[in-house]
Parts: sequence; structure tokens; C-alpha cells
Amino acid sequence: MKKIINDPNTVVQDSLRGFAAAHADLVQVHYDPDFVTRVTPKTGKVGVISGGGSGHEPLHAGFVGTGMLDAAVPGAVFTSPTPDPILAATQAADSGAGVLHIVKNYTGDVLNFETAAELASAEGVEVRAVIVDDDVAVKDSLYTAGRRGVGGTVLLEKIVGSAAERGDDLLAVTELAERVNANVRSMGAALSSCTVPHAGKPTFELADNEIEIGIGIHGEPGRQRVNLVPADELVPMLLDPIVDDLPFASGDNVLLFVNGMGGTPLIELYLAYGIAEKQLADRGITVERRLVGNYITSLEMQGFSISVLKLDDELRELWDAPVNTPALRWGV
Amino acid sequence: MKKIINDPNTVVQDSLRGFAAAHADLVQVHYDPDFVTRVTPKTGKVGVISGGGSGHEPLHAGFVGTGMLDAAVPGAVFTSPTPDPILAATQAADSGAGVLHIVKNYTGDVLNFETAAELASAEGVEVRAVIVDDDVAVKDSLYTAGRRGVGGTVLLEKIVGSAAERGDDLLAVTELAERVNANVRSMGAALSSCTVPHAGKPTFELADNEIEIGIGIHGEPGRQRVNLVPADELVPMLLDPIVDDLPFASGDNVLLFVNGMGGTPLIELYLAYGIAEKQLADRGITVERRLVGNYITSLEMQGFSISVLKLDDELRELWDAPVNTPALRWGV
Repeated sequence: MKKIINDPNTVVQDSLRGFAAAHADLVQVHYDPDFVTRVTPKTGKVGVISGGGSGHEPLHAGFVGTGMLDAAVPGAVFTSPTPDPILAATQAADSGAGVLHIVKNYTGDVLNFETAAELASAEGVEVRAVIVDDDVAVKDSLYTAGRRGVGGTVLLEKIVGSAAERGDDLLAVTELAERVNANVRSMGAALSSCTVPHAGKPTFELADNEIEIGIGIHGEPGRQRVNLVPADELVPMLLDPIVDDLPFASGDNVLLFVNGMGGTPLIELYLAYGIAEKQLADRGITVERRLVGNYITSLEMQGFSISVLKLDDELRELWDAPVNTPALRWGV
Repeated sequence: MKKIINDPNTVVQDSLRGFAAAHADLVQVHYDPDFVTRVTPKTGKVGVISGGGSGHEPLHAGFVGTGMLDAAVPGAVFTSPTPDPILAATQAADSGAGVLHIVKNYTGDVLNFETAAELASAEGVEVRAVIVDDDVAVKDSLYTAGRRGVGGTVLLEKIVGSAAERGDDLLAVTELAERVNANVRSMGAALSSCTVPHAGKPTFELADNEIEIGIGIHGEPGRQRVNLVPADELVPMLLDPIVDDLPFASGDNVLLFVNGMGGTPLIELYLAYGIAEKQLADRGITVERRLVGNYITSLEMQGFSISVLKLDDELRELWDAPVNTPALRWGV
């Protein structure tokens, strides 16, 4: 295992210290329990928080800031945070208007966020939750009952965060979150595995010419393993199941998100983006907004995922609203 | 070779098509000859352009936009662009105030930019050039006489681009570029090799536990190969030669840039950043500005580089000035 780390057991905290130093203008990192808040909390609004295992950076801590999250809770690598830090983050994010939990659909995350919500409620904090389950690849998987939460989470955090920022109440923010989740679909492919620091060896093995279609963000099995194909054939192996699932139809306006898994060069992500946008156009689907880059990763995994979100006037307006976080910034 | 591409011979153009579609609000891509300009050129200012082999994305095309570059010239992967597209980009970037060429110090780039400058001069365009050579690792290397141009290029393009944007004339912009280059030092380390698409096999081989200290951005040999060490020991193997070279001294204010080579997870880059900032503080050097992420890459190489730029009031002000490009954006 080759990694730029000291001790596999302290990699998350060691990285958080650097993250805190690099973005002291935007975020504050709290330790023991570990969670991240805005450096200048905004009061009088719904608190929006998310969290989950580390190893998917910049998700979620990189999205803490104006117009997106109020707090994030990083667990150990690929491991849900326990209820304690989620509770602490929930309390920190509450200023009387309640808190929305954005939870990717993995069994541990769902359970621990639920427990934290109960504890917070007992302390007088009103908490609601949205479970993100946008991955069309598989139903029921390692770590998950139902579909997994993947790239759509990034889009949801931006849009819902901006709704909370403009002053929507907890019910409205929750309903919006459910609407975004209902209108986004995603799927990914891996060209290589990744190595969890405390495991010390690759999560799975792929042959020299083999790729995994429908990979999960922790390396969970997908739909099939196939030999590497040209990008023109690979992109529709992800895009077609996405389009057919919602289904997206001719005349739809969408946000197209091509996400890198962490080890894929930008030159390849842009190449895939170009193909995906063209193939959507061929179906009469118009890409109105786009995002290309490494936003929800799987450590150093090579691969990419595609997410498509059906837009309407409100979702587009909320997407365009100013955001000022370590990993997403515009309009400020 | 596993890559998300179609044909190794058209990977740059195929990627540029996706890049153009993804950032049509900011850039325009011209083909045959291939170069990238702002979608809305600004006239009455010095044109600032750069270029070089592809495979280092987002450098340089990702830095085209307000407050940074007017045009970029992507060559084939790890191969200098020929004089033709450099000439075309120079002419496109000229609105009467002259053009600055920002050239990383590689033999092919220097030669081809010089030839293009002569051709442009013959057409009546005043051209000056700055050669970036910030890599302290080695003197004279594969592809280079003298020191190589690496991470400092990103910082220089931002600062010099902002000076041109505020209306500095060609002489002032050129002198500023030389001042930035004189005050920045960089060094990198590789944990893995990378594979050039048309070569089809890794550029070099590293043993399972081996890393290369002082690696070049095309995989050129560095200073030494050593066994992997903890990050606390690895960071000073890059940082100490940087600090000792300028030299940086107690009381200095600096910009600290921790750059990923393309395949390194953000969790490791932040970890390295935290160590580097602390080690600079221990020497009495204050980090006033910082940048962490993948900005000058080597395809899917795992590794990172550190750049340190000595700041003064003017450089800090120009760094802070608004920038609106695909890869760097703030203040807008």
C-alpha cells in the first residue's frame, strides 16, 4: 500500500487537520467527536447536515459553507460515523428552525443518523431526514438494503442547501430534498480498485483488461465485469440505464454530472462528458447545467460515474444560487 | 492500459470537445490548429497565453478566463504544441497591447514558443516571454536544459493574468512574471507512474514500496528513489530543498500550494498540506494564502508536489483578485 499518510488509524484526523488549516476562512473542524461546521454559522435558518464514511472527499466536509451544508460528519474511511458526532453536528447546526439530515442509503449510515435524530429530538431539536438512493446499478448490495446513495448526493446537497439559505422552512426543505432524490439517477464504472488504509490491500481485484460496471463507491460489486471498451461504448453502459430508469424523455432539461472516482485524469472525465452530453442530445434531452470533476470519490479508484438530474425552474435557480465552500464555489 | 478514451491518437481533441461543451460559458475551443480562447475576449489589455503538452489538466486550458489566461495551446500528450497553434493563439490574444507567453522550461516548448513569437512579431504582434523554471529537484533533465517548470506555473498564471486584467502594460506584466518565477520554488514525488495513451505502457516502473523524490511532471527522473516513508518524513524531503533553495527565511509570508499529480486522493493532499504548513510555521514562515488540489497533473500518476511562493503586498493582492476560469474561480 502506497499512501501519503502517517498512521492508517489516524488518517482521517490527520487529514482533517490539514483541511482545517487550508480552509480556515470557511470551516471549523471539531475533534472528539469529529465534525465540521461553518466558521461563521448562520442562524435563523434550517440546518442542513450530511456525513458518512471518509474516503469520498471532497464529500461531505468540502461542501460545508454558505449555500450548501451547515455541518458534515466524517466517519472512519468507508465507515459510518457513530451517533455521537452526528448528534453534536446536529446540535451545532440547529438555531431553532430544525435540521435536515442528508443520508446516503447505507445500512450503517441510516441507522446511526436515525439514532442521532432520536437523541437530538429528545434534546428539543426538530430533525427530518432524506435518504438518497440514486444508484440504478443494483438493488440490495453490500452495506445496503435498496439502492445506494451516490453522485446525486452532491447535487442534492447544493440545491437543498441553497433552499435553506434563502429561508425555506424544514418541511419545504425536506420536500425539496425528496423531489431532488426522486429526479436524479446515477451509475458508475471502475477501472481499478482502491485500498482502504487500515485494510492495507485492494478492496477487490480486476484483471488487466477488465472493468466493473455499476460499481459502488466503496467498491461494492456492480452489475457485471466486462473487458474494457472504447469510451463511446462505455458511456452508454452507464447512461442508458440511467435514462431508462427515471425515465428521462425527449424534451427534458437536465443537469449532467460526470464525476471522477479519485484516480481518473480530468482529460478522461471531459472526454466522457462530451460523449454523454451528445448521447443525451441524440435522445432529445437538453443539458442545461453541468458539473465535471472529482466530487464524490472512492480514494484512489480509477473510474467515473454519471448522474443526471431532471431540472425545473426552481431546481435550476437553486443550483445557480451562490455557493462558497472548499470544493464548490460560484457567485461569490 | 485502462483509460476512458476512444482512440489514443485523438484523445486530446476528444477531450477538448467535452471541455468545450462543459464550459461553453467561459471558453471557446478552436480546432486545426487546436487552441482555446475566452468565449468573450477582452480587448485593450495585454494578452496572456500559455501552453504545452496535454496530460497536465486542468493546466493550461482550465485556466482560460477572466483574471487569468486569454488563450491556451494544448499539444499532444506530454508533447509541445507546434508553432502554428501557438501563433494562432497569440494572434487571437492580441488586441494591440502585446502578448506574454508563459512557457514552462522544456526544450520543445521553449523552441516552439520562440518560433511562434518570431512569426507573430513579423505579423506586427509584440511578444514577450517568461520561462518558468521553479523545480528545485534537478538541473538538466530529460526534455530540459536547466530547471523544469512545474507547479509555480499555476501561481504565475493567476497572478500575472490578474495584472494584465487590471491593465498593466506588457513590460510591467513581463517583469511581474519574472518576479513571480524568481520567488517560487517547487518539488514533487511520485508513488506511481503514468501511462501516455499513445505509448500504451507505464512511462517508468516503481517497485511496490518505492517512491521517486523529485519526479518531473512527465515522469522524468528525480533525485532519488527511496522506500515509502510516513508523510511526516516525506513532506520535508520536498519542503526542505524548496526552503533552502530560495532560501525562504523566518519572517517570510508565503503562498503554500500542495498539488496532486492526478491520481492522489484529496484526503492525502490535505494531510500533506497540514504537515507542510506546520513545518513552515516551525521555521517562522507564515502561510498567508494556500491552494490544495489537482492543478498541474501527470495523467493518473499518484503523487504530489509542493510549491512555495514568497508573497509581498502586490502579489497577495493579485492572487486575491477575482478569477473566473473552469478550474479556478473566486470573487465572481
